[in-house]
Amino acid sequence: MVKIITISREFGSGGRELGKRLADVMGYEYYDREIIAAIAENKGMDEGYVEKMLESQSWKSRGLHFRNSFSRTMTIGQTGTDLLLEQKKVVEEIAKAGKNCVIVGRNADILLGGYMPFKLFVCADMEAKIRRCVERAEDGKVLSRKELERKIRLIDKGRMGTREIVTGIPWGERSAYHLVINTSGWDMKELTQLAAKFAETWFERRENDTVIGSL
Amino acid sequence: MVKIITISREFGSGGRELGKRLADVMGYEYYDREIIAAIAENKGMDEGYVEKMLESQSWKSRGLHFRNSFSRTMTIGQTGTDLLLEQKKVVEEIAKAGKNCVIVGRNADILLGGYMPFKLFVCADMEAKIRRCVERAEDGKVLSRKELERKIRLIDKGRMGTREIVTGIPWGERSAYHLVINTSGWDMKELTQLAAKFAETWFERRENDTVIGSL
Repeated sequence: MVKIITISREFGSGGRELGKRLADVMGYEYYDREIIAAIAENKGMDEGYVEKMLESQSWKSRGLHFRNSFSRTMTIGQTGTDLLLEQKKVVEEIAKAGKNCVIVGRNADILLGGYMPFKLFVCADMEAKIRRCVERAEDGKVLSRKELERKIRLIDKGRMGTREIVTGIPWGERSAYHLVINTSGWDMKELTQLAAKFAETWFERRENDTVIGSL
Repeated sequence: MVKIITISREFGSGGRELGKRLADVMGYEYYDREIIAAIAENKGMDEGYVEKMLESQSWKSRGLHFRNSFSRTMTIGQTGTDLLLEQKKVVEEIAKAGKNCVIVGRNADILLGGYMPFKLFVCADMEAKIRRCVERAEDGKVLSRKELERKIRLIDKGRMGTREIVTGIPWGERSAYHLVINTSGWDMKELTQLAAKFAETWFERRENDTVIGSL
């Protein structure tokens, strides 16, 4: 069976970097912004707009009703629904292509549950996340500490909301993942080696064993 | 600096087994029930009673007021306070003894924060926890699925309550740990090797590096 590593991550935690490095080290394909680009192309929309729509909860206040598995009714707009369905399609096509890969975000852990991916959640403490954002800020785009903290919380809140609408499962719920890694204080290279070993061992186990957990 | 691995765990997740195996593999001391035994001896109390008091929230309803860092006022009994203080003393004495060790539970990750332990949280999905409890039940002590699920939730609720009183920090909060491992479907031997590698690498990093996260 194809080997898929899904990465859910807090904003600023370095989840994307870890995912990219994992793909490099393991010789896997890597999907991140490529998914947004594919959705945008398929729908004939602007990439930035698609990203914004999928990352924010701005479309929660309009139109259509969704009833998720917790039987809570949520409201999302027609565009939101279209984009979520397109995202599902794109993510499923990636898995069907049958190449081992790392997929960052997009609730791929749930969408591709049937492929038994290795599910990683990447977090960090607020200090480390702020430091990371400052280091990576483009010139002239430096936010204050307070603004950064607000931005981090807001983006994560958006991800949380999207996840609940798409899957009915709370985001970051520890037992929904095989491994939750806190990147604070780590060297990403070292961490990649450790995480790769975890994933490889899990895939071996998946191939050789019939009894595996219900995760 | 002494190397300490602290293990917080959901009831039935196999955290204790993982801790014992980690200690064996790494040649560390192992502390679990030994702490309860020491508290009981120091206070001249029955071990079973001490355990029950420290694991349950039964003493929350009496006497003394504690104000934790969230400024919430909690009420715990005099015996509860005494036992928590004694527990703190015993855990600190273990660290001061200077031998590398694994400590299961007792909020040692927070009590020994100054020793920069490697902080592990062990969880599992409910199915796996129930299976584990059934496999390990003594003859004649088999509970129904429903009773087991209730027991698991109740014990974890107790741990959560104790943690909040002792530390002011929510139990199981992902960014309070270096690593959260979901044991569902794993072979414990394999998992031990992977976790040991993680801890060893982290300790090396701690020794060689000045910049480490605020965890």
